[in-house]
Amino acid sequence: MTQDLKQTRQNAADNPVTLLGLGAMGTALARTWLAAGHPLTVWNRTASRADALVAEGAKAAATAAEAVAASPLIVVCLLDEASVTEALAGVDLAGKDVVDLTTGTPAQARARARWAEERGARFLDGGIMAVPPMIGIPEAGGYVFYSGSRALFDAHADTLSVPAGANFVGADPGFASLHDVALLSGMYGMFAGITHAFALVRGEADIKPTEFAPLLKGWLHAMSGAVDGYAERLESGDYTTGVVSNLAMQVAGIPTFLGTAAGQGVSTELLTPFFGLMERLLGEGAGAEDTARAVDLLAGRAGAATA
Amino acid sequence: MTQDLKQTRQNAADNPVTLLGLGAMGTALARTWLAAGHPLTVWNRTASRADALVAEGAKAAATAAEAVAASPLIVVCLLDEASVTEALAGVDLAGKDVVDLTTGTPAQARARARWAEERGARFLDGGIMAVPPMIGIPEAGGYVFYSGSRALFDAHADTLSVPAGANFVGADPGFASLHDVALLSGMYGMFAGITHAFALVRGEADIKPTEFAPLLKGWLHAMSGAVDGYAERLESGDYTTGVVSNLAMQVAGIPTFLGTAAGQGVSTELLTPFFGLMERLLGEGAGAEDTARAVDLLAGRAGAATA
Repeated sequence: MTQDLKQTRQNAADNPVTLLGLGAMGTALARTWLAAGHPLTVWNRTASRADALVAEGAKAAATAAEAVAASPLIVVCLLDEASVTEALAGVDLAGKDVVDLTTGTPAQARARARWAEERGARFLDGGIMAVPPMIGIPEAGGYVFYSGSRALFDAHADTLSVPAGANFVGADPGFASLHDVALLSGMYGMFAGITHAFALVRGEADIKPTEFAPLLKGWLHAMSGAVDGYAERLESGDYTTGVVSNLAMQVAGIPTFLGTAAGQGVSTELLTPFFGLMERLLGEGAGAEDTARAVDLLAGRAGAATA
Repeated sequence: MTQDLKQTRQNAADNPVTLLGLGAMGTALARTWLAAGHPLTVWNRTASRADALVAEGAKAAATAAEAVAASPLIVVCLLDEASVTEALAGVDLAGKDVVDLTTGTPAQARARARWAEERGARFLDGGIMAVPPMIGIPEAGGYVFYSGSRALFDAHADTLSVPAGANFVGADPGFASLHDVALLSGMYGMFAGITHAFALVRGEADIKPTEFAPLLKGWLHAMSGAVDGYAERLESGDYTTGVVSNLAMQVAGIPTFLGTAAGQGVSTELLTPFFGLMERLLGEGAGAEDTARAVDLLAGRAGAATA
């Protein structure tokens, strides 16, 4: 064991973790802390889910209160906000550092932060950008957004970085959830596009999905660069300079998309809302502008197409 | 000049091209053939658009018929199908090789192929996966899908590869358009997701679009790998093995997405159709399945959730 590794193991041994919630994600997190040498106390409503982890060195607490008492750092990874409220009802959180990885909205995270602070705890909310198989595998590229108490984050950054990368995105406890939901929303849009694309070729025996896939993936990769263009236009407020394919040109192409879907027997339900947004912008006089203009329309902000 | 380059220039000189249509895309294509040394005859309804190209060495034809007579290879890049019908009405196409890059549906391409063959021409339809600034810049990664006459494609592959990569996708003349529309449909889904994601953070002064952009782009890059999973499941028909985030889990997360959008004052219109598709699948008993199952539902195919 090198001196550096010895020091790392000693740091881990000096930083015990309590984890509430042993679903697939909680269990994946737990294993990484155990492997890194952190003393780990776990609690789960269905106690038997802790058995395998106990065999690997974790301590199982009989109650959430006992688990919370065992460590200064409490990581919560339960099903939903209601489960958090139920699990921690009446539990003494004074002086504790609470990190809530339970999925929820920014508003729920802000309310939970107030709730924790009222009980004398420091609070950090987290949004996990990974699925359980990516936890503990740095090469998988998963990470966690954190927001809330910077002091808590700094005090436990090493521990929090064990399962996946740690990205602090602001003192507003709602920002981790907001970043999480925004990125996943972008992904669902992409999944909708992928679904429509595969549906279009689904009926063609001569187009194999696995031969079509690299074309679609390569195109989406290339076109994801549009994200930078969106950001620059939103920040500068300039939606017209250097537009290659403006809204008028894109709206002119819509019949080809709808006609192709109809010809292939595919519902257009996943495409029409975005096309509708472009048509509304065109109707408001934004024909010469970039599609990034649609962001303000969707966000209900004034100022679209005033040029 | 090396021997190879001499040979390439000689090949180009021996392979004249006629181009109908000098919009932004036609003009970009024209420049690459001129630069490569192909004798080029151009025609455009508004004749003045040819002036700059004539100065660069192109020959301007007074009529479409004169342009068609000038070369064995006729490339058509007009506004829409109606423009093609109008431009080529009564023009002798016997023995010609016609490549139609005009945007249209697969059905339109198939009809145009029959139309061309009835006039004694070989026919190839093309779908351009690039915007004009990418034409002639191999590093930009643009390319053209071609389908229809393989013999035509093989005879002119070198010439067709001058403006952008050439990818032959089948003898069915509708397949180039189908691939084109499918990839662009996937892109529009991704753009819808990008639009919703930026709209969610639009009202937060502490989240700069250009700081948010790399996070969104990186996430979309990573998640575009899902395309391969879709293809494998569609091909194998196995929607349940190794599902990390099944439809039941994803539907359980929907309230967080809708609640976050409501809290940020953002319309959910771009997200709800895909969520609705997932909810319908769950209602049909597909809770344990992968979202790839949505492809068959969208394509109106039986067999979803029969497990």
